[in-house]
Amino acid sequence: MAGNSYGTLFRISTFGESHGAGIGVVIDGCPPGIEIDMDFIQSELDRRRPGQSAIVTQRKEADVVDIQSGIFEGLSTGTPISLYIKNKDQKSKDYSHIADKFRPSHADYTYAAKYGVRDYRGGGRSSARETAARVAAGAIAKTILYAHGIKINAYVSQVGTLELAKDYTTLDLSLTESNIVRCPDAEMAEQMIDYIKDIRKQGDTVGGMVSCVIAGCPVGLGEPVFDKLHAELGKAMLSINAVKGFEYGSGFRSLAMKGSEHNDIFQKAEDGSIHTSTNFSGGVQGGISNGMDIYFNVAFKPVATIMQDQESIDKEGNEAVVTGKGRHDPCVVPRAVPIVEAMAALVIVDFILRQKAN
Amino acid sequence: MAGNSYGTLFRISTFGESHGAGIGVVIDGCPPGIEIDMDFIQSELDRRRPGQSAIVTQRKEADVVDIQSGIFEGLSTGTPISLYIKNKDQKSKDYSHIADKFRPSHADYTYAAKYGVRDYRGGGRSSARETAARVAAGAIAKTILYAHGIKINAYVSQVGTLELAKDYTTLDLSLTESNIVRCPDAEMAEQMIDYIKDIRKQGDTVGGMVSCVIAGCPVGLGEPVFDKLHAELGKAMLSINAVKGFEYGSGFRSLAMKGSEHNDIFQKAEDGSIHTSTNFSGGVQGGISNGMDIYFNVAFKPVATIMQDQESIDKEGNEAVVTGKGRHDPCVVPRAVPIVEAMAALVIVDFILRQKAN
Amino acid sequence: MAGNSYGTLFRISTFGESHGAGIGVVIDGCPPGIEIDMDFIQSELDRRRPGQSAIVTQRKEADVVDIQSGIFEGLSTGTPISLYIKNKDQKSKDYSHIADKFRPSHADYTYAAKYGVRDYRGGGRSSARETAARVAAGAIAKTILYAHGIKINAYVSQVGTLELAKDYTTLDLSLTESNIVRCPDAEMAEQMIDYIKDIRKQGDTVGGMVSCVIAGCPVGLGEPVFDKLHAELGKAMLSINAVKGFEYGSGFRSLAMKGSEHNDIFQKAEDGSIHTSTNFSGGVQGGISNGMDIYFNVAFKPVATIMQDQESIDKEGNEAVVTGKGRHDPCVVPRAVPIVEAMAALVIVDFILRQKAN
Amino acid sequence: MAGNSYGTLFRISTFGESHGAGIGVVIDGCPPGIEIDMDFIQSELDRRRPGQSAIVTQRKEADVVDIQSGIFEGLSTGTPISLYIKNKDQKSKDYSHIADKFRPSHADYTYAAKYGVRDYRGGGRSSARETAARVAAGAIAKTILYAHGIKINAYVSQVGTLELAKDYTTLDLSLTESNIVRCPDAEMAEQMIDYIKDIRKQGDTVGGMVSCVIAGCPVGLGEPVFDKLHAELGKAMLSINAVKGFEYGSGFRSLAMKGSEHNDIFQKAEDGSIHTSTNFSGGVQGGISNGMDIYFNVAFKPVATIMQDQESIDKEGNEAVVTGKGRHDPCVVPRAVPIVEAMAALVIVDFILRQKAN
Repeated sequence: MAGNSYGTLFRISTFGESHGAGIGVVIDGCPPGIEIDMDFIQSELDRRRPGQSAIVTQRKEADVVDIQSGIFEGLSTGTPISLYIKNKDQKSKDYSHIADKFRPSHADYTYAAKYGVRDYRGGGRSSARETAARVAAGAIAKTILYAHGIKINAYVSQVGTLELAKDYTTLDLSLTESNIVRCPDAEMAEQMIDYIKDIRKQGDTVGGMVSCVIAGCPVGLGEPVFDKLHAELGKAMLSINAVKGFEYGSGFRSLAMKGSEHNDIFQKAEDGSIHTSTNFSGGVQGGISNGMDIYFNVAFKPVATIMQDQESIDKEGNEAVVTGKGRHDPCVVPRAVPIVEAMAALVIVDFILRQKAN
Repeated sequence: MAGNSYGTLFRISTFGESHGAGIGVVIDGCPPGIEIDMDFIQSELDRRRPGQSAIVTQRKEADVVDIQSGIFEGLSTGTPISLYIKNKDQKSKDYSHIADKFRPSHADYTYAAKYGVRDYRGGGRSSARETAARVAAGAIAKTILYAHGIKINAYVSQVGTLELAKDYTTLDLSLTESNIVRCPDAEMAEQMIDYIKDIRKQGDTVGGMVSCVIAGCPVGLGEPVFDKLHAELGKAMLSINAVKGFEYGSGFRSLAMKGSEHNDIFQKAEDGSIHTSTNFSGGVQGGISNGMDIYFNVAFKPVATIMQDQESIDKEGNEAVVTGKGRHDPCVVPRAVPIVEAMAALVIVDFILRQKAN
Repeated sequence: MAGNSYGTLFRISTFGESHGAGIGVVIDGCPPGIEIDMDFIQSELDRRRPGQSAIVTQRKEADVVDIQSGIFEGLSTGTPISLYIKNKDQKSKDYSHIADKFRPSHADYTYAAKYGVRDYRGGGRSSARETAARVAAGAIAKTILYAHGIKINAYVSQVGTLELAKDYTTLDLSLTESNIVRCPDAEMAEQMIDYIKDIRKQGDTVGGMVSCVIAGCPVGLGEPVFDKLHAELGKAMLSINAVKGFEYGSGFRSLAMKGSEHNDIFQKAEDGSIHTSTNFSGGVQGGISNGMDIYFNVAFKPVATIMQDQESIDKEGNEAVVTGKGRHDPCVVPRAVPIVEAMAALVIVDFILRQKAN
Repeated sequence: MAGNSYGTLFRISTFGESHGAGIGVVIDGCPPGIEIDMDFIQSELDRRRPGQSAIVTQRKEADVVDIQSGIFEGLSTGTPISLYIKNKDQKSKDYSHIADKFRPSHADYTYAAKYGVRDYRGGGRSSARETAARVAAGAIAKTILYAHGIKINAYVSQVGTLELAKDYTTLDLSLTESNIVRCPDAEMAEQMIDYIKDIRKQGDTVGGMVSCVIAGCPVGLGEPVFDKLHAELGKAMLSINAVKGFEYGSGFRSLAMKGSEHNDIFQKAEDGSIHTSTNFSGGVQGGISNGMDIYFNVAFKPVATIMQDQESIDKEGNEAVVTGKGRHDPCVVPRAVPIVEAMAALVIVDFILRQKAN
């Protein structure tokens, strides 16, 4: 109830702070007999890891994952899987300059007000470092999905005002990992990279968009009414640090459309399968998957930590200047791609288990 | 787990189908000693009710709410409150023309695939009629919030391409109920009404946007990590029929902004209270309320039922023509306003109880 | 979280007070396509109903069940099933004599302290009348279990000091319903009936035991660690009004036994099936069913309402005499038999769905 | 849902296997600002630890607890607390002799059937080693309870046929830790110790009883209907390995009593407080605490692992002899005392938080 768990049948509980002993996750409900590939988990973590390229934070964290339970001779046993990532050098840095100050648009003030006590080092629990645990758990979820023929591909579709104005069906999503900004369009990727480098030089940050496509979902996933498939996807995405908006299928565009344009017409293919001629529904109707691609957009605000002096107050309410220090991301979306995929995988695998129980 | 409940400590479970015996809701966790005003609950239902104006469905449903438990001598007792709305004339209509067909962009196909059996009359459980139960429960949530000094105001901010391009702080939200489209700007309201009437004449439908402001929230509501305040708001809104997108605070606009523009600067007022000079955060930081107004937008797609013939298939996969019949909304947003408010109230009251347990 | 729901995937939420409008239950998670036999549900309610025989309360309640949702053309649709039992004559009686007094060993004092406000009429929510809703839901659970070849039989094994000292394997449980005390041993049944009649004449009450056997469970039901099969059974039984103890398999007898006597030896039958030579384990090992009969005992205290004057206090703490009025059970166990069965069925069907999700 | 978590607002999730990397627990919902005393947590673990005396298993496990998150400068921060106990020498031992055999009255067969794959080393997840994690979490729960003036004392009241036939009110529970069997009656303790030593010499094991008293509970804890205080206590106790029965207050004795004997009469003390003259209710009425002592008994079966040859079968169904090896407890109750206390503390602290949310 304190908000550190997600999922109903495939349920993850994360723990750990940015500069505490480590970050971890316990997965309860992973079916038995799944082959757990530690190298794959590590490779997913490496996609999220700081210091991976010239346009992300230059902090050094190897993010080596360790397994504490739930796996025997390479297979999941149906008991809780605990994954742990030890923090490096967590005591080395001096955080006294922000211990009593509230950084603008960070969680410092709200955590202080809610809990009375807080670990201010690097944001403590509110740090996006927590998402490493999600990526680790998401890698196991992806493993299960692959076996069901389900593929999840996220990519960067906008950085600042640079918008990739192409439908995902016209893109080759296998190219996403071919550049450091994770945009499958090479030309746009280059522009985005240049722009982010420029923003960094200004000591500033910028927002961006991650788009995601889930292909191969069977018909029938999602629970109607409150736990609609897209409602859970929305919650999962909005729970990622810095996310400000979510839309699926036709999304915000739909509000200016007419029903006669927007309705997706059912058709039967030669092989007997049912599909729709268009897919404004985004693969979900009445909260339940209809077998078409599920696609959605996630809006990320600009990172709050900037390398400029900012006015603020301290915990006594006195005026105080906050000075950006350390190494931070000028734009989160390149590193957010694997996080969006991980959360999407966790949502879908949970619905698969829920549907099995029907 | 089957998705018909919402909330953790103030938990509602809805039941009922569009053309079954009735629609109802059980509220578990309502604190004892709350004065329950049945007239207020009814007045909220009346805002959602069909047939209320010239621009909504002309179906006749009185939607009279009945109490089955949980209230003694006008006060909640801490035991489950059950509210029930009997359906009128539920057997009178002939639905055989759609019993075997899948209406485009409805839940017919996905329900059939998921459950094997379905109540096809008026959409059965997938009908937006279910939201009457949410509005009834939301009225009790609102009663609790009023006592905490929290006010929730939703309004229509867009219909089709008619966009109310004004910040909510420049509007008088007390005017929302003064016109049938529920737009607080009289001039824009008139245009919207005319447009919806025109759309109806075309036998078509159109999408729209509902905006919502929650004022008076204390600092500290919301649980970090997965159950962030805005993530729950997002899920709650996305669970409403026909919703395609959600954004809060700066929302999708934020992705084209720089950190130096977007950060909200903390200030201390003369009375010692803390606020921010701007509110791009939308009243939520790190998933926790910071005392500023919480505001968000909800995008509704055009209603799927149109008064035009549409191609489709039946459950055997044969081609079939679906003909719009009956009386339907040309645009859902006027009636969606109380639903958005109800869901927002349910989210906030749940977080108040969760925070009490801290 | 307020304790009015039970189950995870087959989840029931009950509502209603003894003398309010009615008693009901919403079942969320019932699989679709189950044939719902309203006559069977009613017949189960008739086994629990007051006034059914000379040894139970002579109150008149027909307990007619009404369906509000979730069933279409006789089949469950996978959406919430709401069952409702209207209370008769709920306003006819005068409860002012106990409105302010705390009846000994009732929930009057604790409810008053916990909630501040309470419906004192007939115990309100704390009345065993709430169990009617469980029996109605349990009938649907039983229907699902029958299709899985699982049978649940409870019976009265002790009334006061009259103990049926026979192992269940030596009894013909089909005889349980052949007498009004629900003891499958005719001779003992007669003694019990006479004894209860005698107790009633004294204006007194007496405790008793219900034993229960679940036959036909597949291997593998139950979740290890906290949600062990027998732990959930224990909770379910202890949640029934007046229950003071629970034991399964060898139960309290086991503590005086040695491991060499108590261990159940595995054997393979000619047909290849695995069983144990003895069944001290009670069909559960490590919290998981092993395919043998699951059997357990439930201890019920004597009913608190007696037809004798008792000292007590009122809500101001003044001394007050409580006088038994109305028509009450001299011993609950005959009517508790279907309640124990219903709760057992709800536990098992929930574990079946949970196991499907593995 | 997979059963590895307990509690609603103060929620623990345990992980780890007997011979895996380690055992741990994540606590979600611990209120902020609690002083966490690592020495106290360790001292509770030492009460449960193997090798602590001549009458328990002589295995060597130091059970040193390590903190991974949730505590900053000695105080809980309101974020998840993760506690971890590394296993020693987990790879040193040869378990091939039981890898394919089903030990009688163990969980080997049911785990194999349920999951298909299992960690057979020392029972894997089904080992009572998991309870170390509960004791660690329980120590934090106890810390919170002490601040509320609530004390929990468990003790051994029976070993085999040696029964401490004294009411707890006549015992000095502060003497429980003064002997290695944890029986507060010195004379009986000596007999029990001798008996257990004798049983060990026989290569056999024996059952026993743990009794527990919770003193100082405020009125109003517990949720009526399904989550009654004693129902949760019952589930919590029955979830401990080897437990076969639970009774509270008058328990199984009550079934032979009359209402006129059994009812507890309310009285007002000179100081205005309300109590009952007797306490057959065991401190709980209608599922809610009434301020009197809560007391209950927990029955433990004899340990299944005996130092004698036993017939069994292997996973192919072939006959096989199981030979007891290693160092095991001849009787679990001395080490079960802190486990019973820990689970009781977890139940009560959860109800305190739930009541705060009312």
